[in-house]
Amino acid sequence: MIRFECDYTEGAHARIMQRLLETNEEQTPGYGMDEHCDKARDYIRKACGAEKADIHFLVGGTQTNTTIIASILRPHQGAVAAITGHIAVHETGAIEAIGHKVLTVPSDDGKIQADQVKKIYDAHWNDVNHEHMVQPGLVYISHPTENGTTYSRGELEALSKVCRACGLPLVMDGARLGYGLAASGSDLSLSDIARLCDVFYIGGTKVGALFGEAVVITNDALKKDFRYSIKQHGGMLAKGRLLGIQFETLFEDGLYYEISQHAVDMAMRIREAFTKKGYPLRYDSATNQQFPILPDSILEKLSAKYAYSFWEKTDAAHSAVRFCTSWATKRENVEMLVKDIAALP
Amino acid sequence: MIRFECDYTEGAHARIMQRLLETNEEQTPGYGMDEHCDKARDYIRKACGAEKADIHFLVGGTQTNTTIIASILRPHQGAVAAITGHIAVHETGAIEAIGHKVLTVPSDDGKIQADQVKKIYDAHWNDVNHEHMVQPGLVYISHPTENGTTYSRGELEALSKVCRACGLPLVMDGARLGYGLAASGSDLSLSDIARLCDVFYIGGTKVGALFGEAVVITNDALKKDFRYSIKQHGGMLAKGRLLGIQFETLFEDGLYYEISQHAVDMAMRIREAFTKKGYPLRYDSATNQQFPILPDSILEKLSAKYAYSFWEKTDAAHSAVRFCTSWATKRENVEMLVKDIAALP
Amino acid sequence: MIRFECDYTEGAHARIMQRLLETNEEQTPGYGMDEHCDKARDYIRKACGAEKADIHFLVGGTQTNTTIIASILRPHQGAVAAITGHIAVHETGAIEAIGHKVLTVPSDDGKIQADQVKKIYDAHWNDVNHEHMVQPGLVYISHPTENGTTYSRGELEALSKVCRACGLPLVMDGARLGYGLAASGSDLSLSDIARLCDVFYIGGTKVGALFGEAVVITNDALKKDFRYSIKQHGGMLAKGRLLGIQFETLFEDGLYYEISQHAVDMAMRIREAFTKKGYPLRYDSATNQQFPILPDSILEKLSAKYAYSFWEKTDAAHSAVRFCTSWATKRENVEMLVKDIAALP
Amino acid sequence: MIRFECDYTEGAHARIMQRLLETNEEQTPGYGMDEHCDKARDYIRKACGAEKADIHFLVGGTQTNTTIIASILRPHQGAVAAITGHIAVHETGAIEAIGHKVLTVPSDDGKIQADQVKKIYDAHWNDVNHEHMVQPGLVYISHPTENGTTYSRGELEALSKVCRACGLPLVMDGARLGYGLAASGSDLSLSDIARLCDVFYIGGTKVGALFGEAVVITNDALKKDFRYSIKQHGGMLAKGRLLGIQFETLFEDGLYYEISQHAVDMAMRIREAFTKKGYPLRYDSATNQQFPILPDSILEKLSAKYAYSFWEKTDAAHSAVRFCTSWATKRENVEMLVKDIAALP
Repeated sequence: MIRFECDYTEGAHARIMQRLLETNEEQTPGYGMDEHCDKARDYIRKACGAEKADIHFLVGGTQTNTTIIASILRPHQGAVAAITGHIAVHETGAIEAIGHKVLTVPSDDGKIQADQVKKIYDAHWNDVNHEHMVQPGLVYISHPTENGTTYSRGELEALSKVCRACGLPLVMDGARLGYGLAASGSDLSLSDIARLCDVFYIGGTKVGALFGEAVVITNDALKKDFRYSIKQHGGMLAKGRLLGIQFETLFEDGLYYEISQHAVDMAMRIREAFTKKGYPLRYDSATNQQFPILPDSILEKLSAKYAYSFWEKTDAAHSAVRFCTSWATKRENVEMLVKDIAALP
Repeated sequence: MIRFECDYTEGAHARIMQRLLETNEEQTPGYGMDEHCDKARDYIRKACGAEKADIHFLVGGTQTNTTIIASILRPHQGAVAAITGHIAVHETGAIEAIGHKVLTVPSDDGKIQADQVKKIYDAHWNDVNHEHMVQPGLVYISHPTENGTTYSRGELEALSKVCRACGLPLVMDGARLGYGLAASGSDLSLSDIARLCDVFYIGGTKVGALFGEAVVITNDALKKDFRYSIKQHGGMLAKGRLLGIQFETLFEDGLYYEISQHAVDMAMRIREAFTKKGYPLRYDSATNQQFPILPDSILEKLSAKYAYSFWEKTDAAHSAVRFCTSWATKRENVEMLVKDIAALP
Repeated sequence: MIRFECDYTEGAHARIMQRLLETNEEQTPGYGMDEHCDKARDYIRKACGAEKADIHFLVGGTQTNTTIIASILRPHQGAVAAITGHIAVHETGAIEAIGHKVLTVPSDDGKIQADQVKKIYDAHWNDVNHEHMVQPGLVYISHPTENGTTYSRGELEALSKVCRACGLPLVMDGARLGYGLAASGSDLSLSDIARLCDVFYIGGTKVGALFGEAVVITNDALKKDFRYSIKQHGGMLAKGRLLGIQFETLFEDGLYYEISQHAVDMAMRIREAFTKKGYPLRYDSATNQQFPILPDSILEKLSAKYAYSFWEKTDAAHSAVRFCTSWATKRENVEMLVKDIAALP
Repeated sequence: MIRFECDYTEGAHARIMQRLLETNEEQTPGYGMDEHCDKARDYIRKACGAEKADIHFLVGGTQTNTTIIASILRPHQGAVAAITGHIAVHETGAIEAIGHKVLTVPSDDGKIQADQVKKIYDAHWNDVNHEHMVQPGLVYISHPTENGTTYSRGELEALSKVCRACGLPLVMDGARLGYGLAASGSDLSLSDIARLCDVFYIGGTKVGALFGEAVVITNDALKKDFRYSIKQHGGMLAKGRLLGIQFETLFEDGLYYEISQHAVDMAMRIREAFTKKGYPLRYDSATNQQFPILPDSILEKLSAKYAYSFWEKTDAAHSAVRFCTSWATKRENVEMLVKDIAALP
C-alpha cells in the first residue's frame, strides 16, 4: 500500500533524525529554555523578518490552536473562522472546551475574505441584543486552508487591515505553512505573514519534523504570560530541546523551504495526471493536497494499491477524495501513481 | 408607549403578588427546601402526569439551559439545536462557556425534525474521523420555538423516538411553554411532553411570574446530583420559597393555563388584524409572538405609539417585526392596536 | 420554631413589597435598562461617593462572584481568598467551573491581611517554576466575612495598597455588607470601600430585598463588556426592574442602613446573653452572625424551640453554632431567646 | 556542568533512537492506529497482567492528567489529591481550567492514606450543605510521589478498598513509575497496580523515551470515548507511531525495568554519600529523586560543578535540594559526585 492519505505517514527528515541522534546525550534544561530552542528562535525570527517576535514551540496543532486562542480571548468572545476551519470541525470541540464559541462564516474553498469579517463584526455591534451574543474576538484562518487553497498577499493584506480596524487579532494556523509558501503562484512570503498576522505558527509535524509547531507572536499585546498558557494546555514539552533541535535543522539553511517545494512539485504531478485524464478537482489547490473527483468505481480500483482520504460524495456515483504529498513523498511512488492514472479506463 | 416588544414587560400576576405579600413574613428554610416548593412540586407532578419526576426551580432561562446541559453532557459531547435556538444565538455563549459546542441544524421555522436528528447522528458515527469531532450528546428544542411555532404531538413523538433510539436525551426549553399549550390547534399536552422528553422546563418568567422556571426531569438517569449543578451555575435561590410560592399559585388551580390562553387570544386578534390588512407573516405562529412583515414606512408610523421588536430586513423596504402578547396584555391596548392597524393606509 | 439559622428566612422589607406592588403593572424594557435601575444606580453612586462607578444588578451571590471573577481573570490566573472564603468552600466549585483556581491563604477569623497577599504574590513570582503554577490574579475578600468579622479601615487600606502595588484587583463580596457597615465599632464606610476596592457588591438578598446584589465597579479597566459576562453567567434578569425597584427602595432614603442597624442591634442582644452566661464565642463578631460555643446537651434543648446552624465541633461535648439575625428579626423573638438563654442551667 | 536537577535532561535511550531511525521511512496511519502502537499495547497488557485493559499513548504528564480527569468527573466533582500533588501545584491550574477543583488533603511525604480518603468522603456526605460543596469524584495519587516516596502494596490495597467502597475511581500518576517499581524495598508490582487502580499511566518521558505516557484503563466503566478526550485535550499525536515505537522498545524485553533499576542504583549511591557525610534527607526516598538538606554555603560550592533543584529553605542557613538520577545518568558522573561529597568540609 502506498500512502497518500495524509501528510504525516512517515517519521522525520533524515537530517532531523541525524541531529536528534547527535544531540541525544547532551544535557539541557527542560521546557524550551535550552540553547537549541534559542537558536531555532533566532533562525525563525530572521526568516520572518521579525526581530522582536516571541517564538514558542508546541507539539501539535490542536494544542497550539487551543493555547493561542485561550491566551487571546476574554470569556464572552469567540473565534471567527471558516465553516470548514480545523477549529470548527476537527478538534473535538477543543475551543468550546476552553469556553469559546467558533463563529463560523460560510466558505466554499476554506478561505474567508475581508468583507466577511467586516460583515460579522458589524452584524454583532449593530444588533441591539449584542450583549446576548458572543462577541467576535479574533479571526482564525488556515494557510494553506484545509482544502489546499492559499491566500494571496492582497487577500491577506485586506484581511489584516479589516482585522486591525476592528481590533480583532488575526491568527494563522500554519500547520502546512511550508506548502503554502511553496505553492505555485503564491506571492505571500513568511515576512508578509509576520507583518500581517498577530500570531501564526509554522507547522513542523507535516513538514519534515517528527512533531512540532513554532508559534510566532508579533503583536506585543499578545505576548504576556504565553508560557503559562502553554503549560496549562499541556503543551510544555519536558524535553523542549527536541522541538528546538528540529526547528533549528529546518531553518538554519532553508531545509524547510526545500522540502516543502518537493512536496508541492510532487502534488503538481498528481494534479496534472488527474486533470489530463479529465477528472475535475473539488478545490483549486496549488499545494500538497489535491482533491480530484472520481467515479466510485475508479476509486475502488485505485484503493487496491493507494491509500487516499475520502472527502465527500459529489453525486450518486462520484466522490471527491484527497491525495496528499509531503516532504517524504518518494518520486518513484508519484510516477507510478501518475502512470496508473494515465492508464485508467 | 404601549409595549408589545417582549413578554416580560410587567411584574407578576396579581394573585402571585398577593400570595407573596401574604407569605412575606413566614420563616422558611432556604434553597428550595421549604413547603411551598414541595407543594408546587406536587401540583406540577400532577399536571404532568409524572408522579416520579424530579422538579427543581430556577430563576431564568439561560441559567436553566446551562444547568441542564452541564448536568447531562460529557465534555466531548455537544447539544444538537436548531440554528435559531436560544442556546445557539442569544445566551452569550453560555453553553460554550461550560465547554460544549452547540451542533446546529438548519431550520426555517425554529423547529427541528426527527430525520434531522437521525441525520446528524448518523453523519457523526459514520465519519471515520468521528473521534476528532464533537459527539452529539443531547437534543435541545424550544416549544414554542423562538419563532412562535409549535411541535405537534406527532412531531414530538417522532423526535422522541429517534432520540431514544440514538441514546440522546431530549431537552425542551419551555420558557414560553404555557403559550405553546394554549396555541390554537395544538394537540400537545403537558403530559405528552413529560412522556416524550427527558428533561423540560415550564417557564414562569414569561407566563405570570416575576421570574422562575420549573425544571421537570422524567428520565431517572438524569436526576442524580442535579442540585449540585444548580448551585454551581448560580441558580440556587437563597429564598427558594419565592419560586415555590409562584409556581404553587400558577398550578394549584389552573391559573397557568388560563393566563396563557388570554395571551394567545390577544395574539390571534393581532394576527388577524395584520393578515386582514394583507400583511404577510414571517412565521406561522399560533402562539403569543406574531411576526408580521411590514413596509418600513408603516413601521415608523406604528413606533410612535407601540413598542415592538425588529426581527430582520426582508427586503430593501420591508422588515419582519415581532409583536408579543403575554398574560399581562390589556385587552384595550390590543383593541387599540387592531383599530390602528385597520386604519393603516 | 423560631428561625435564627440564616439571614434569608423571610421575604422582603414591607416597603419593598409595597413598591413592587405599586409598580407591578408598569411596562418597562428588560434586562436592567429601565428607569428604576437607573435611579437605583444613581442612589448607589451617591451613597458610595463614586460618581463614575458602573453599577450592575444581579440576582444572587454565587452568580455575582462568578460573573465578577470571570470578567477579570485571564485563564492562567487564580483568585486569592481566605481558606474559609465563600468562593473557596460553598459555591460547588463555581470558580473552578469557569476555569480558575482559588488560591487559599490561611485564616482563623475569615479575614486576610495585606502581608498575606504580599507573601503569596512574592512566593509566586520568586518561584523559578512560576509558569507552572497558577498566577495570583485578584484578591477576594468578604466584608463581613463568613465568620461575622469585619475589616477596619486601616486593614482595608493596607490590603488595597498591597493589591495596587501588585496589580491585583481587590474584589469585595458584600453579601452582608449592610451588617458590616452597621457593625458596632466599625470605622469603614461605603465610600471607603468604593475608594479602596476595585469591584464590590452590596448585598440585597440578606439585607431587606427578596433577592439581588448590586455590583459596583470603580476601576475603569474592569468595566468593559461586563454585561456580556452577566448574560453568559445567567445573571441578566429578564425583568431587571425588579432589582432596580428593590435597590431604589433600599437606597433612596437610607433604609438599607436602618434595617442593617436593627439586625446588628438584635445580634448584640444575643451575643450579650450568651457571654453573660459564660459561653465563649468562636469568632469575635460585631455583626449579625453570632457563633457561641455551647455544650451539646444545651444545644439539643435549644433546638426544640429555635433553629440555628451547626458550625463545627469544638471538642467531644461542645459545638460552635451560628445564630443569625437580619432586617426581619422580630424583637420579641430575640427577647424570648435572651430570656431562655438566661434561664439555661 | 553535570546535571542532576531533573530526570529529563537527555534525549532517549539508544535503543529507542535506533528503532526510531529504523522505522523512520515506514508509512503508517496516524493517531495511534498503527501496528507499533498495537504491539506496544500488547506488551503493556501482558506486563500488567491486564488482558482487557485499554491502552492509550499520550505525550506528556500534564496533558495525561487533564485528559484522564476530564474523562472521569462530572462538572460538580473534584479530584482528591495530596496537597503536594502535581495536579495541585505544578500544572498551571490545568485541572481547574477543565472545570474541576483539586480537593487537597495534607501530606508530609507526598502520599495520601486510605483513612484520609474516607475522612474527606465522609466529611462531604455528612455535611448538611454538601450540595454547596465540590463532591469528591476521584482520588489522584502519584507513585512514586513528587517527593520520591512510594506506596507499599498494603497501602495501595487499603486505598483501593476505600476508593471502591466510596465509588471513587483511583487514578495513579506514574510519570516516574519505573523508578517506583525499581525502588529498593518496594513490594508493589505493575500487576498489583493494574489490579488496584482504575486508571494509571506508565511514564516514558522520564524513563527512557523522548516523550510519552502510556495510559492503562482497567475499569470498564471508564473506557468509553476516551479517544475523544485525548483529541479534545490536544494529546492525539498525528504520528502516533512515535509513541508506539518507544513503548514497544521499552516493554518488549524488559528495557523499562532495567533502565529504571540503573537510575535507582545511582540514586542510592548519592543518598549514601550524603547520609554518610551526616546530611539529613528531607524525604525518605528509595527512588531516583533524593532530597538532602545541606548548608547553603556547601550548596553554593556544589553548584559550581553540579546542577540540582532548589526545593525549600529548611532554616536560615540550610536548604533541601533535589538531586535526580535517570536512565541516562552516567556512572562516572555519580562517582565523581560521591567523591566530591565525601570531600566536603
